[in-house]
Amino acid sequence: MENTIVFALSSSKELANQVCEILGQEPGKVTVNHFADGEILVELGESVRGKDVYFIQSTNNPVNDNLMELLIAIDAAKRASARTINAVIPYFGYARQDRKAKPRQPITSRLVASLLERAGADRVITMDLHATQIQGFFDVPADDITTLTLVGEYLKEKESSRDLVVVSPDHGGVVRARKLAEQLDAPIAIIDKRRPKPNVAEAMNLIGDVNGKTAIIIDDMVDTAGTLTSGIKMLRDKGAQKVYAACAHGILSGPAIDRLKAADLEEFICTNTIDQTDKRDLYKEMTVISVAPLLAATIQAIETNAPLSKALNSAVEESEESIKELCHKHIH
Amino acid sequence: MENTIVFALSSSKELANQVCEILGQEPGKVTVNHFADGEILVELGESVRGKDVYFIQSTNNPVNDNLMELLIAIDAAKRASARTINAVIPYFGYARQDRKAKPRQPITSRLVASLLERAGADRVITMDLHATQIQGFFDVPADDITTLTLVGEYLKEKESSRDLVVVSPDHGGVVRARKLAEQLDAPIAIIDKRRPKPNVAEAMNLIGDVNGKTAIIIDDMVDTAGTLTSGIKMLRDKGAQKVYAACAHGILSGPAIDRLKAADLEEFICTNTIDQTDKRDLYKEMTVISVAPLLAATIQAIETNAPLSKALNSAVEESEESIKELCHKHIH
Amino acid sequence: MENTIVFALSSSKELANQVCEILGQEPGKVTVNHFADGEILVELGESVRGKDVYFIQSTNNPVNDNLMELLIAIDAAKRASARTINAVIPYFGYARQDRKAKPRQPITSRLVASLLERAGADRVITMDLHATQIQGFFDVPADDITTLTLVGEYLKEKESSRDLVVVSPDHGGVVRARKLAEQLDAPIAIIDKRRPKPNVAEAMNLIGDVNGKTAIIIDDMVDTAGTLTSGIKMLRDKGAQKVYAACAHGILSGPAIDRLKAADLEEFICTNTIDQTDKRDLYKEMTVISVAPLLAATIQAIETNAPLSKALNSAVEESEESIKELCHKHIH
Amino acid sequence: MENTIVFALSSSKELANQVCEILGQEPGKVTVNHFADGEILVELGESVRGKDVYFIQSTNNPVNDNLMELLIAIDAAKRASARTINAVIPYFGYARQDRKAKPRQPITSRLVASLLERAGADRVITMDLHATQIQGFFDVPADDITTLTLVGEYLKEKESSRDLVVVSPDHGGVVRARKLAEQLDAPIAIIDKRRPKPNVAEAMNLIGDVNGKTAIIIDDMVDTAGTLTSGIKMLRDKGAQKVYAACAHGILSGPAIDRLKAADLEEFICTNTIDQTDKRDLYKEMTVISVAPLLAATIQAIETNAPLSKALNSAVEESEESIKELCHKHIH
Amino acid sequence: MENTIVFALSSSKELANQVCEILGQEPGKVTVNHFADGEILVELGESVRGKDVYFIQSTNNPVNDNLMELLIAIDAAKRASARTINAVIPYFGYARQDRKAKPRQPITSRLVASLLERAGADRVITMDLHATQIQGFFDVPADDITTLTLVGEYLKEKESSRDLVVVSPDHGGVVRARKLAEQLDAPIAIIDKRRPKPNVAEAMNLIGDVNGKTAIIIDDMVDTAGTLTSGIKMLRDKGAQKVYAACAHGILSGPAIDRLKAADLEEFICTNTIDQTDKRDLYKEMTVISVAPLLAATIQAIETNAPLSKALNSAVEESEESIKELCHKHIH
Amino acid sequence: MENTIVFALSSSKELANQVCEILGQEPGKVTVNHFADGEILVELGESVRGKDVYFIQSTNNPVNDNLMELLIAIDAAKRASARTINAVIPYFGYARQDRKAKPRQPITSRLVASLLERAGADRVITMDLHATQIQGFFDVPADDITTLTLVGEYLKEKESSRDLVVVSPDHGGVVRARKLAEQLDAPIAIIDKRRPKPNVAEAMNLIGDVNGKTAIIIDDMVDTAGTLTSGIKMLRDKGAQKVYAACAHGILSGPAIDRLKAADLEEFICTNTIDQTDKRDLYKEMTVISVAPLLAATIQAIETNAPLSKALNSAVEESEESIKELCHKHIH
Repeated sequence: MENTIVFALSSSKELANQVCEILGQEPGKVTVNHFADGEILVELGESVRGKDVYFIQSTNNPVNDNLMELLIAIDAAKRASARTINAVIPYFGYARQDRKAKPRQPITSRLVASLLERAGADRVITMDLHATQIQGFFDVPADDITTLTLVGEYLKEKESSRDLVVVSPDHGGVVRARKLAEQLDAPIAIIDKRRPKPNVAEAMNLIGDVNGKTAIIIDDMVDTAGTLTSGIKMLRDKGAQKVYAACAHGILSGPAIDRLKAADLEEFICTNTIDQTDKRDLYKEMTVISVAPLLAATIQAIETNAPLSKALNSAVEESEESIKELCHKHIH
Repeated sequence: MENTIVFALSSSKELANQVCEILGQEPGKVTVNHFADGEILVELGESVRGKDVYFIQSTNNPVNDNLMELLIAIDAAKRASARTINAVIPYFGYARQDRKAKPRQPITSRLVASLLERAGADRVITMDLHATQIQGFFDVPADDITTLTLVGEYLKEKESSRDLVVVSPDHGGVVRARKLAEQLDAPIAIIDKRRPKPNVAEAMNLIGDVNGKTAIIIDDMVDTAGTLTSGIKMLRDKGAQKVYAACAHGILSGPAIDRLKAADLEEFICTNTIDQTDKRDLYKEMTVISVAPLLAATIQAIETNAPLSKALNSAVEESEESIKELCHKHIH
Repeated sequence: MENTIVFALSSSKELANQVCEILGQEPGKVTVNHFADGEILVELGESVRGKDVYFIQSTNNPVNDNLMELLIAIDAAKRASARTINAVIPYFGYARQDRKAKPRQPITSRLVASLLERAGADRVITMDLHATQIQGFFDVPADDITTLTLVGEYLKEKESSRDLVVVSPDHGGVVRARKLAEQLDAPIAIIDKRRPKPNVAEAMNLIGDVNGKTAIIIDDMVDTAGTLTSGIKMLRDKGAQKVYAACAHGILSGPAIDRLKAADLEEFICTNTIDQTDKRDLYKEMTVISVAPLLAATIQAIETNAPLSKALNSAVEESEESIKELCHKHIH
Repeated sequence: MENTIVFALSSSKELANQVCEILGQEPGKVTVNHFADGEILVELGESVRGKDVYFIQSTNNPVNDNLMELLIAIDAAKRASARTINAVIPYFGYARQDRKAKPRQPITSRLVASLLERAGADRVITMDLHATQIQGFFDVPADDITTLTLVGEYLKEKESSRDLVVVSPDHGGVVRARKLAEQLDAPIAIIDKRRPKPNVAEAMNLIGDVNGKTAIIIDDMVDTAGTLTSGIKMLRDKGAQKVYAACAHGILSGPAIDRLKAADLEEFICTNTIDQTDKRDLYKEMTVISVAPLLAATIQAIETNAPLSKALNSAVEESEESIKELCHKHIH
Repeated sequence: MENTIVFALSSSKELANQVCEILGQEPGKVTVNHFADGEILVELGESVRGKDVYFIQSTNNPVNDNLMELLIAIDAAKRASARTINAVIPYFGYARQDRKAKPRQPITSRLVASLLERAGADRVITMDLHATQIQGFFDVPADDITTLTLVGEYLKEKESSRDLVVVSPDHGGVVRARKLAEQLDAPIAIIDKRRPKPNVAEAMNLIGDVNGKTAIIIDDMVDTAGTLTSGIKMLRDKGAQKVYAACAHGILSGPAIDRLKAADLEEFICTNTIDQTDKRDLYKEMTVISVAPLLAATIQAIETNAPLSKALNSAVEESEESIKELCHKHIH
Repeated sequence: MENTIVFALSSSKELANQVCEILGQEPGKVTVNHFADGEILVELGESVRGKDVYFIQSTNNPVNDNLMELLIAIDAAKRASARTINAVIPYFGYARQDRKAKPRQPITSRLVASLLERAGADRVITMDLHATQIQGFFDVPADDITTLTLVGEYLKEKESSRDLVVVSPDHGGVVRARKLAEQLDAPIAIIDKRRPKPNVAEAMNLIGDVNGKTAIIIDDMVDTAGTLTSGIKMLRDKGAQKVYAACAHGILSGPAIDRLKAADLEEFICTNTIDQTDKRDLYKEMTVISVAPLLAATIQAIETNAPLSKALNSAVEESEESIKELCHKHIH
């Protein structure tokens, strides 16, 4: 893949380095200056003329800086005659603003998609998008990669108990929970937040049975962890023996880590779609699964015109060793 | 509104005529020729130069003919120097193809949105879109009008019993059910289709209580009515005294009418976003609420730059009389 | 051409299969579902990542279904990261709506061109476009392939008589007639429909001489065949010994086949730009020349960056054998 | 029409002044500098903020200078916040390059249409386009105004003889000839240039009868006048008593005027879509009909949102007086 | 101007309020939420349907947050059917990235212009753009308003001494200095930073004479104030009696205020294109001239289709009183 | 580079031929017809299907003809399925119209950039653009190549005297002068045109020292040479021993050559970005350096995806021989 350059932008440096290691090539040289007045200058340190360029950059907090850095990098690559520009956005910020919930609201997800295309992105790669419809906000090809398979492999390895149940924290996440449940050969349960009558406080109810089981709550992202920790409590009240919480995107803003530490939780599992280097310092017990093999496989499939689904399956298989290792690290 | 012309295209003739009657103006003159070889020619019969043009056309079956007719009409209006072109699409076909469910699928909802914009639509007005994210497929303003308010008014008037429960037929429809429930001051229940374990048949379960109550199943569209009639059966099994089924879009294709007639159902309620003239002949018992007051109010709000939400509220209030009338017609 | 996939869409299945046979490769796997409510779902059955995709689909009756199927297929291919998307439209519907004949008419040919580009077509290949200006409706490269050469070869082989005359059925078709005449080394004649004075019935007059000759009427398309059969009658009245009628696109809608059968006609010749499988059952005497060699040559030229004109000449030469065969089949 | 400004650009100064006189307003102030190095600078001399701007500019010789001047003027108006920009192009240059006659040719008409739209034109007004399909090259509304009605009025007034025949100089112009013939209540004839057999010199033949009649050859444009003068000769040979030649666009390049002067011609009639001030000096006998009333009526219709066809009919009626005057000037 | 709404976004709240006060109308209601994870949600609090919307938002530090907030607000207004959307950006960030200084750099100014247009801005209003060519980065009308006139008025009022000299701090600013000099009827001088020979330290030289005079250094923006304070020192060394420093945009990042306080400076004058509320607390001696009258006049001119230049001249005249007041406040 | 075709258009025939010679390939066959009515027809004489096409065409006088010819050629190549279209514009006309100097002016440089992109240019190559910001007017990659390096090499070779000074003719050219000065290891001086007070005639002043030195005035373009010859005079008055004048673009319109011949000038040096064949006949003493090696290196770098800067450095080195030769030709 001599024609391919992968650039690590500010928010995803470590992840991008891992991707490059798997691909067996150095990350592209790039300098990102943040000036005193807040402006960003991105300079590509090597020729991209006629090359397929991949920028890896999650748009987590500081979301606007990260997004602008990505847009500027795309502009630089376009003007430097890159053959194709691929925006790899493991965590796609603003995903929850995907519709007008009230009149005169923006649809910021669509706006961001349009901005990326306007700047010059030829393809977008995301992971576990909040709503699958967001793919339709793009006119260019948008591949959304699931991290569930890795999380599932980890849990299979970790939990010898076969008496599992996968729990969706709300109605919107049932499809996700069902997919993980199939992978683990487990039933599902749903946390049903509803108001039996209007003007009555929201009640948290459980659909399905967790009594005596090992429960795995699965979500796409964990932000302040408020709902999650209430859910954990309820599952334990309903008789769950252990509770795992897993997600793709560990935003973990505000009180999240304190809440998770205080929760009656076996293990918190997320991926590095959002860089967790700093947070792991604060929360050593968390498990962070690297999505680098998935991204490396995706890039390789694109560059060799191979079908993506096969490539991802192989990547999951090849990750087995490192996932086992990760398990044992966390067991001791 | 001398500057406004409303054109009734083939699929929504009756509805458009009702809208024009409320607006107190004749529908615009337009000729739609369907030639022997299947081609369509749309000729506008009066000047639209400098006018705000509204084409009312649902894209129900035959969806491709209706869509092309609309696109051709838009092209004609654009070339005839209309000031703005507003596509009023009470039923927006292809709405269920709103994401890639599998690799190498299209996102046809987005495609249709792009085609409408390319042809020259300046604004789109839809009703009860299948997924709210579809608004984000448009770059031009897209107003999605709910018909739930009318349906709710009808049910309030119809059912003296106050022991109601609103039922969502699946997890995706809970938000819709919750809104109707608030309007009727009723609790909600959810039909929970799930597989407890993989390779075990899908089970239909009920979350919430319908025993001794009047149940109202609410959905955005009813196509072949298979799931709906299974749901009705289960609700009755669970002790519901009566079951109403209501939706915005009565597609009613294939065996739908036969199934509904055979179901243990108090009343089937839909709107005329899809023209029901022919189907009402086959299924006299169905109730069809006209959305014309909502569309007329929307057009009036746009033309007078008034806020849309107020206009719609007034429209619902002004519909009270005709809704009462509709109720009594169906009681006898 | 391992990088090339040819997909056969609904209206041109047989033709596309012939093209693939010549190219020595299987047609791409694709599933086209037509649902009960009229919606179409196109799913590509194999990876197109980085490939040059060709969709073969004429937009004859049902024109709107065929067009939408093509647009949806293009959307699917675009989102699946095809390198280029080539719309091969042997018969381009709506071609006669190529100008505003009266105020407030659409220009549907241009609209269709814009829709194809918006969906994602990178190149368009058509055959015997009704008006050559339609190429200019496209911004992407549009190659228009003539089928006249094949028709000429057939007639050369078929008619030993050298006393031929090529007849244009109207003033618009003279250029086409002249080209065929040059190929056959024959003179031309023109059917001159005119009103000598206003308010006097249209008179059909003949310019040129057909007396004692074998006349060949050539047109781009034959729809209801009314004008054609009047023309045949007149040619016979003027002393033509035999009359052949030939065209590229055999639309043959409504009474066309009955009229042709009743006409005093030696042979009706068309191509398979429009699939004639069903019509040949009703009208066994018609001759259908396959354009597959021309399309295969075009695709091969594009994929190998060879000049198109040479490729097409070779294709005609290589078709000689099969054309001879076709002749003899029809002689007996 | 206080919101309307009409600017006279270099090639159509006189015509634009006439239009403004009819509209009762001063032409907008504009300075066009042609620098020593060939560059053009257009400066608008008064505010166009929020106004409907009309630039009148034919793109006749020097076609590229005139086209660029128009494009630059459009850019200036767009950046100065004009509400709408209307390009009035009485003679639309490059109209004959409307299709690829051979491989690897441009379609310059379409290119020019795209350039005008890119610069910022919101509407285009042309007169007697060479091919009606060119309207479809534009995405913005394109109104094509015929000058035939004025030419017809002039001939009705001029020729008391009612034994007229309208002659089309080639097959492409028959529709035009037929329209004029209807206006004059006359029959038509066609000059038929054809090769009876290949490699035989082109023969000029006449379809129809001109013997003893007053013949009027009508074409859209007269460039070098070679074909026209051969036609005149043939008509006289065939017994025409007098021959008039009329066209919309008097390009009259190269030997045209000398040829016309030498021809056996009663009168040469054209319009001022192309400015004829200089040429009239060389060729005093030519009749130039002003199209200013048509353009003024068009602008007025657009600005008052009135239907265009009625406005043009009135304009023709109101032109009667001045056309009579023009007749008598030429009689003496 | 009932059809006009001015919204005050986060970075320019105070300035926008002043503008609204002059216009005699309330600022539009808008809520800007900054969430814990860094995402921004802009909700317009009142109907903008059919209205001309003005968003006032400088893109100073935090530049990316301010830019995204503006883009999101534009998206919200577009989807809420605003008639026009006007982005008023008194300080246009990223203006110094207006060209590729080295290979593989972006041109971020152009990128930002493209993003604003993509989001839906119909017009852009800026003040004292760093390079006038940036107007050409926009395709929509871009009005750049100079604040020099106000600064000049202030200085005329303030400095009774007529022995002034205007100093440009570098070669790029000479045009600006010349304009101010004309307003003040003063000569100019230029600070000439140059290397007489390569590899020799940059020397600061003065062109022109400041001895015994009151010098006014004028620049478009002051960022860290390093160059400015060196310049002040040199002017004093060269005999200037007093030195004023004036600019449009007081970025004042990092050590700027400390440097200015330490400089041998009569007065530092800037405007409120960048909000100076917080900085004025740290640096009481600075003079901040409000540009609100200029922006109010601009909006009024646009809304009434009046020529902008006259409107701005009037605004400057009308500001005389408040400028006098400002002078006296600073004298005491 | 079998996939590359370089076409020589009308204004840059000789230069393009030189480029092709260096690249070792024949220029592409192309016919450019200029018709009597001023219209241009460009026909590509060989297949460009799938090829990288380079059109070399400066847009000097006749600028509009040259620009249109280029746009038409691009259209032809696009429709003939070129893989990429590269517009090589050694002299980019209209470059001085790069901003609105006054209200209601166009920004013609941006317009031209937009027209080139609209026609289908995928990349633009220019030389010594008047303002570097013009690169930002393009959305496609725009590489601007400096000719200064060649001019510097020439002067190093020519002038044995090491007592050089590089002079900028105005404030805008200082950066350019500084770069040349670094190459020649010389100091710089600046000609300072200014008005010490308004309404006093512009004075020409010199910053820096030229006494006894060999002065080299460097500019990007020389048009009528008025300012240049005044500058030469002043430099001589200030004691310069010899004066060279050098520029990239020798427009030399109007009285330029007469002025240069009359000036007290050692040598006038320009390049062939503008073809100088005719002018060299009138002005034998001028030195014209060919930029062909730079363009050939650029094309080669693009086609082989090599970094451009290295390629240009090598090109300069390889030019040493021919530059030496050129020196000696001029010495004698």
